[in-house]
Amino acid sequence: MIEARGLPDTVVNRGRCGRYHDLAELDFGGGRASVSVFVSRCRILPLTLDTVERHPLGSQAFLPLSSDPFLVVAARDSNGAPGRPAAFRTVPGQGVNYRRGVWHGVLTPLGRAARFVVVDRVGEGDNLEEHRFDVPWVVRPDTG
Amino acid sequence: MIEARGLPDTVVNRGRCGRYHDLAELDFGGGRASVSVFVSRCRILPLTLDTVERHPLGSQAFLPLSSDPFLVVAARDSNGAPGRPAAFRTVPGQGVNYRRGVWHGVLTPLGRAARFVVVDRVGEGDNLEEHRFDVPWVVRPDTG
Repeated sequence: MIEARGLPDTVVNRGRCGRYHDLAELDFGGGRASVSVFVSRCRILPLTLDTVERHPLGSQAFLPLSSDPFLVVAARDSNGAPGRPAAFRTVPGQGVNYRRGVWHGVLTPLGRAARFVVVDRVGEGDNLEEHRFDVPWVVRPDTG
Repeated sequence: MIEARGLPDTVVNRGRCGRYHDLAELDFGGGRASVSVFVSRCRILPLTLDTVERHPLGSQAFLPLSSDPFLVVAARDSNGAPGRPAAFRTVPGQGVNYRRGVWHGVLTPLGRAARFVVVDRVGEGDNLEEHRFDVPWVVRPDTG
């Protein structure tokens, strides 16, 4: 997760500004870093998770421009296919960086549409792999 | 400026999400890209601008996590020193990417403290150069 918590790593600008430094393990292989903005419709739980994807050539970081939660879904790889996905809801101020090659769900704001800063790879090569589950998973609200 | 305006460049996630693609000319030379979060106190106009800085080794992008305005200050270089600075206030949704070597003011939220996603360079070398004006500039509110 990408999160500015506790005390900042450094304080700059004559004490006016805290820097929470280098919060994500960015990795763009032979490509280069890019900054994009995603504007996404929201989903409501429970939702059917029939597909996950991964980017074999680079990491992909999502930082929400609002404090609304979004859904993070990730799954370990097992012989080239995703295992059982884990899912959770972010808290305000959290972003996420999916490392290169990590199976994950698509961007899923919860509750209302949202905008995100996205830092990912631009470059040659096919950087998208999708996996469709034979039997879809269902992501339900945490009922405690 | 970094801004998601008009129609997105591509639509992904089965039509649910628009991508405004590759909005900043990132440039990290021999270093690497990093994602940080800055939390900065605000300033109120008019303000005294006595110093600008530049990063000779990489670009630095600021994307606000709120819709509050911040002050952008930049100046052309003239024989190794900044010329007359230009200043303006952002509108909601705007970020900024200072290209490598461009003189600019430090992060200056207006009105209230604010958080920013910062994409800049991590690596060896001295990436900060500061210039103190003999006679400070004063940035005043635009009175139309």
